[in-house]
Amino acid sequence: MRHFITVNQLSAEEIFLLIKTAESYQETNFQINQQLFAANLFFEPSTRTKSSFVVAEKKLGLEVLDFHAETSSTEKGESLYDTAKTFESIGADMLVVRHQSDTWMDELDSNIKIPIINAGAGKEEHPTQCLLDLLTIYQEYGRFDGLNVLISGDIKHSRVAHSNAFALKKLGAKVFISAAPGFEDNTLGFPHISMDDAIKFCDVVMLLRVQHERHKHTLETMEYLENYGLTKEREKQMKKHAIILHPAPVNRGVEIDSDLVECDRSRIFKQMSNGVFIRMAIITKILTEWGILNENSIEKCQTVIAN
Amino acid sequence: MRHFITVNQLSAEEIFLLIKTAESYQETNFQINQQLFAANLFFEPSTRTKSSFVVAEKKLGLEVLDFHAETSSTEKGESLYDTAKTFESIGADMLVVRHQSDTWMDELDSNIKIPIINAGAGKEEHPTQCLLDLLTIYQEYGRFDGLNVLISGDIKHSRVAHSNAFALKKLGAKVFISAAPGFEDNTLGFPHISMDDAIKFCDVVMLLRVQHERHKHTLETMEYLENYGLTKEREKQMKKHAIILHPAPVNRGVEIDSDLVECDRSRIFKQMSNGVFIRMAIITKILTEWGILNENSIEKCQTVIAN
Amino acid sequence: MRHFITVNQLSAEEIFLLIKTAESYQETNFQINQQLFAANLFFEPSTRTKSSFVVAEKKLGLEVLDFHAETSSTEKGESLYDTAKTFESIGADMLVVRHQSDTWMDELDSNIKIPIINAGAGKEEHPTQCLLDLLTIYQEYGRFDGLNVLISGDIKHSRVAHSNAFALKKLGAKVFISAAPGFEDNTLGFPHISMDDAIKFCDVVMLLRVQHERHKHTLETMEYLENYGLTKEREKQMKKHAIILHPAPVNRGVEIDSDLVECDRSRIFKQMSNGVFIRMAIITKILTEWGILNENSIEKCQTVIAN
Repeated sequence: MRHFITVNQLSAEEIFLLIKTAESYQETNFQINQQLFAANLFFEPSTRTKSSFVVAEKKLGLEVLDFHAETSSTEKGESLYDTAKTFESIGADMLVVRHQSDTWMDELDSNIKIPIINAGAGKEEHPTQCLLDLLTIYQEYGRFDGLNVLISGDIKHSRVAHSNAFALKKLGAKVFISAAPGFEDNTLGFPHISMDDAIKFCDVVMLLRVQHERHKHTLETMEYLENYGLTKEREKQMKKHAIILHPAPVNRGVEIDSDLVECDRSRIFKQMSNGVFIRMAIITKILTEWGILNENSIEKCQTVIAN
Repeated sequence: MRHFITVNQLSAEEIFLLIKTAESYQETNFQINQQLFAANLFFEPSTRTKSSFVVAEKKLGLEVLDFHAETSSTEKGESLYDTAKTFESIGADMLVVRHQSDTWMDELDSNIKIPIINAGAGKEEHPTQCLLDLLTIYQEYGRFDGLNVLISGDIKHSRVAHSNAFALKKLGAKVFISAAPGFEDNTLGFPHISMDDAIKFCDVVMLLRVQHERHKHTLETMEYLENYGLTKEREKQMKKHAIILHPAPVNRGVEIDSDLVECDRSRIFKQMSNGVFIRMAIITKILTEWGILNENSIEKCQTVIAN
Repeated sequence: MRHFITVNQLSAEEIFLLIKTAESYQETNFQINQQLFAANLFFEPSTRTKSSFVVAEKKLGLEVLDFHAETSSTEKGESLYDTAKTFESIGADMLVVRHQSDTWMDELDSNIKIPIINAGAGKEEHPTQCLLDLLTIYQEYGRFDGLNVLISGDIKHSRVAHSNAFALKKLGAKVFISAAPGFEDNTLGFPHISMDDAIKFCDVVMLLRVQHERHKHTLETMEYLENYGLTKEREKQMKKHAIILHPAPVNRGVEIDSDLVECDRSRIFKQMSNGVFIRMAIITKILTEWGILNENSIEKCQTVIAN
């Protein structure tokens, strides 16, 4: 893998290997025995993804370079490309990028000589989010084959939906889509279904964030939660072991009843926890493939165990 | 102690122990021999308190997770609770919180499973500021018993005044209040006195920041410094060894004559220096009480002494 | 050297020593074997300089204290002086400052008891940028003596131009100035020349950033690139081994044709890379002169070489 831009780059085997690596990081502390720098270039607001990358990097022993678009030369009109090239020049060994442009990689692809990880750039893809969802599902069921997964919400505007739908299909799951009017995306080729129908047989209910700020008026007239969201009544219809996923931030009371965010079925905060470990796995994979790390570069961390 | 929210939680004995621990950190470098993450969630501007926590954390060897409300999902409407839960989920071992809401702890209290330290949240309390004031007074006099302490300024709007007045009383000091009209708080139960009277017999003159931005017009018409602040003339009336405290940022020329900020009596920058060590003491206390640290977790730092 | 404010403080010998030290840091990792804190106080936007200092500090093993004016007590009116004194008080061992005021050092000079490095404060000087330019030229030619250097662009408003012109002269280079009408600075005493003439005999073409945001209208009417910038046609007139420098951020298509930014002659990203190492050299020089470091404080870094 050159840069890590889309989950479509990965074979099923590679996905399983990332999941296994993430699980090993969850059990044992590993650190890289070199001084390497990771630069996190977030041009859009983020709490979870950015902090999750920071924790992943620090757990691996990387030095973290922070970037604040609003106090940077971006203010003087500097482009993403020149910003990325700057961080490469001053010694970054890898870049993590979130940028609003759909064509963000066009200029970077061949000219940036260090690995780039997509942290939710453009409208299309959010591959590390997809992988943490897959890790969470796998930890629940130990497989994807034969699972019924509902993806519900603003499919049209979601960078998570596309990645997840195709990855799950590749791994053998059956994907269903439920979307309010205007939120559908018929280009995906997955069956559309009402949440009321899907809820009864799906093993995973993956809710998407409605971009509240964009759809505020529409949502009110729609009575979104009642009509399209996960209410307490619908939750009761779910299969015994079925789980709830959501990439967060959650609009409590919009796509999900607030009381369900931390209910027994919810894996919403588990997903965040998993995000750190899957990102560690992606970072070590890409650094290894670039030859920046080798098999001797990652060591079990000498955690002192108090007696 | 579960979360560290108010100085009222602490017994006099606990306060003295924190002071002693802070002094030991001032003399010798100690570091925690595990990788632990501290997340500093500041939703309001801060230079001193935030940086002081960062230095305290780094001196202890903690990894620091930064948070910028303005480039976070707070922008998308995410609540303090969901932000705190997110940092808990991604691996923070403790939270330091400054938030504008007076009810900030209501939701966090029982649901957040890692220790929280109040870094000046709400309008009521700023307990780490209180403790650094106590440390500074103790280092001057070696006791609190029998000291006369004047707290002067915008008592009504100060989160420092309340904590300090009660803590000092608990420790045996006698507290007097001086406040301009509109700045009094008669609910506290401490005697009000004019600065001109108090200055002659108080051992500690603790000035409070006037929230200049809020009271600008009033202050001008009041001629605040002349009537209620610490002028050079008043400073000359102070007892021989009496000291001046101020939590800063100072409004030079408002609550204190600018020339007095670094005068011999002033402990204003000493307070900042002390803040780091008292915060280290609070952090190790709370992490120990939660079982995150034990007696073997903190080691003298191997500082190489050059020959 | 007390504080590092201007390149004029340095003798030619000191400059050569900094260049040599920077080159040694480029070849071998060195780290300081004490816990020291560097506070980067940037009151103006910066990508390159700020991140370059951060990398330099982290490569040396320093702890980095970040500062964000917009979420600090600067918002409550706190001055640069009180901010600097605060960081000194909480344990910073050095300050790196970028501030908009031309008189920024007046208050700091004698009252701040830790070394201060000018990171491009005021309008006059940007000494670390100057030194990285010198390092880049030296790495190209192995000397300054007898080189012809063109400094071209907005001389009047450039804090780089002044530092560089005088330092290059001191080191034996011959400096020429080319500037569009209104951008000249006749007080410098260097010969003005058209770019078309200079380009044919200069060994170094040092372009300056036009402050696009300030001159937008003027630039359009000027047809700046064609008349005063480095076009592809002009680049073809350059001497065989002549190089192009630019402090960046580059206004692509204004002071230089976008296609030339990464051409063979360009050292623009090399400059950024060099900036890290020259800043490491400056930091260790000033910390040593202050007695904070001594000859035993800097150790070769134990990088594990994988077999």
